[in-house]
Amino acid sequence: MKEIEKLIEFRESIKVVDATLRDGGLVNDFYFSDEFVKALYKTNVKAGVDYMEIGYKASKEMFDPDKFGKWKFCNEDDINAIFGNNDTDLKLAAMADVGRCDYKNDIIDRNNSALDLIRVATYVHTMPAAIDMIEDAHKKGYETTCNIMAISTAQEGDVKVALEMLGKSSVDCIYIVDSYGSIYPEAMTRICDLYMNAAEKYGKKLGIHAHNNQQLAFANTIEACACGVDYLDATYSGMGRGAGNCYIESLVGFLRNPKYNIYPIIRFIEDYINPMKEQGVTWGYDTQYLFTGVLNRHPKAAIDYTKAGRKDITEFYNEIIVQD
Amino acid sequence: MKEIEKLIEFRESIKVVDATLRDGGLVNDFYFSDEFVKALYKTNVKAGVDYMEIGYKASKEMFDPDKFGKWKFCNEDDINAIFGNNDTDLKLAAMADVGRCDYKNDIIDRNNSALDLIRVATYVHTMPAAIDMIEDAHKKGYETTCNIMAISTAQEGDVKVALEMLGKSSVDCIYIVDSYGSIYPEAMTRICDLYMNAAEKYGKKLGIHAHNNQQLAFANTIEACACGVDYLDATYSGMGRGAGNCYIESLVGFLRNPKYNIYPIIRFIEDYINPMKEQGVTWGYDTQYLFTGVLNRHPKAAIDYTKAGRKDITEFYNEIIVQD
Repeated sequence: MKEIEKLIEFRESIKVVDATLRDGGLVNDFYFSDEFVKALYKTNVKAGVDYMEIGYKASKEMFDPDKFGKWKFCNEDDINAIFGNNDTDLKLAAMADVGRCDYKNDIIDRNNSALDLIRVATYVHTMPAAIDMIEDAHKKGYETTCNIMAISTAQEGDVKVALEMLGKSSVDCIYIVDSYGSIYPEAMTRICDLYMNAAEKYGKKLGIHAHNNQQLAFANTIEACACGVDYLDATYSGMGRGAGNCYIESLVGFLRNPKYNIYPIIRFIEDYINPMKEQGVTWGYDTQYLFTGVLNRHPKAAIDYTKAGRKDITEFYNEIIVQD
Repeated sequence: MKEIEKLIEFRESIKVVDATLRDGGLVNDFYFSDEFVKALYKTNVKAGVDYMEIGYKASKEMFDPDKFGKWKFCNEDDINAIFGNNDTDLKLAAMADVGRCDYKNDIIDRNNSALDLIRVATYVHTMPAAIDMIEDAHKKGYETTCNIMAISTAQEGDVKVALEMLGKSSVDCIYIVDSYGSIYPEAMTRICDLYMNAAEKYGKKLGIHAHNNQQLAFANTIEACACGVDYLDATYSGMGRGAGNCYIESLVGFLRNPKYNIYPIIRFIEDYINPMKEQGVTWGYDTQYLFTGVLNRHPKAAIDYTKAGRKDITEFYNEIIVQD
């Protein structure tokens, strides 16, 4: 049941998760300057953000380190150089993709790392591998979350099985992920109910990671929040793959917990985000993303359309409508 | 209660209202070419749009016709030149503002006009004048709606009185208007309940006109739709004052009634909307509008910031936060 009466109050259990370096890194191949990353870190601390996702723990067997910035890999040396021991209230997180992470080697004991949280990203059909990664990270001392991606193209029965498997695992928090930005808030309510049943049964937290293909990332995030979802992903000005994510400035403008402070966020947008946009780094809502969202498709075709600088949106629609 | 189970079905009573010329006219002082207006009209007919709002019936005593395009005034001659007798299923509407319309003279009998619907826009405190305009238009044979503006800064008790007054009037449809883009979908649900009580008591329809200051115009529109609101305002690519409105392409992508057709809408965006944007006509979500939305303020300061080409968003925040 939505807590529609509590717009002026706040819930202590809510956590804001800044995913700018990780999902935003998909826009610029993780080529963030050290200055940018340090300033973002300081901003998050001042703003009262709870978690900062700093990138991926990607396999260097599968991805060439010469072709990506350092936050694709989150080497411990690189983490230490920027974050030191991280003696702040802001916790640090990295994402580990099923099948694209040498987690047994690259994720070290939490005692020896500045990272606090490992976020395992998986599809429904790779859930056993995801759980192996979760248990590995849990044994190494980390908090863990699991992002089940692309649920809008999965069968509800399969999602239920995945939730049962996660319920019985050591995972701390299960994420609802709208990979294609195709989910409407009304449907989000139902999905939250489905996830909440498993979460309450097994004592897990829930999270939400939304995409903005239909300009619904913020709406879906606060809809999920009203349904009891606590971990809320957002990025600065929505920086993220394709149409991007929930804007952290919108989210912090909405939340009522006085520990959150929008002012440093605004300053960072002026000093770092807007200049980056003016230099041509491109993300955010546009008509091509609406189409892939409505059609419940991966945004790849829309990203390609954007990168090519195409303007023939009608022809693009013709192309994608017949693709399957 | 929200009809969350009916996402695949559709409700025959839903009406899509294209407000591009009227709310979009606030962006370019109504200087639309005849070619643009004719193409928009043909597009709306093809797309299955139910109503097309073509502009204002503004007082020529108060506004200089040399300083605005013709759709600020909607002279009957100008209407006839473009729309003829309008022998289509698309109905035509014009807005009349309380205190800014010589309605007794400028609104003629419906028999002699191509217009079908007069939309009266009012504040809560000018409701008696609005009702005088509604009754005038009703007697002349028009369908009528009433947009109660700026309700997010009005007292709920006053809104209830206004709804009672409208309930007893001849108005056909009462509009929920989020003038400042400050209303969250959770609050929209409560507002819909308030309006629905009056609507059901007096047999009125409800409508929704949303602004996109917090990127919630589409979300609020479909939230209201799920709560039983039937008249849904939207504009092409959200063209409208400041942060703009609900995007008609998003709305038609969401609605399931097969009479709606997104394809001509896409074509119009490619041929007319995107070129207009490239020529420098500016509207749509940006950080400055988020702030006025969060602060529940008229967007004027944000519009001025935008027009001045300012980039000092932190200073802008400092300015508006201390304004009251």
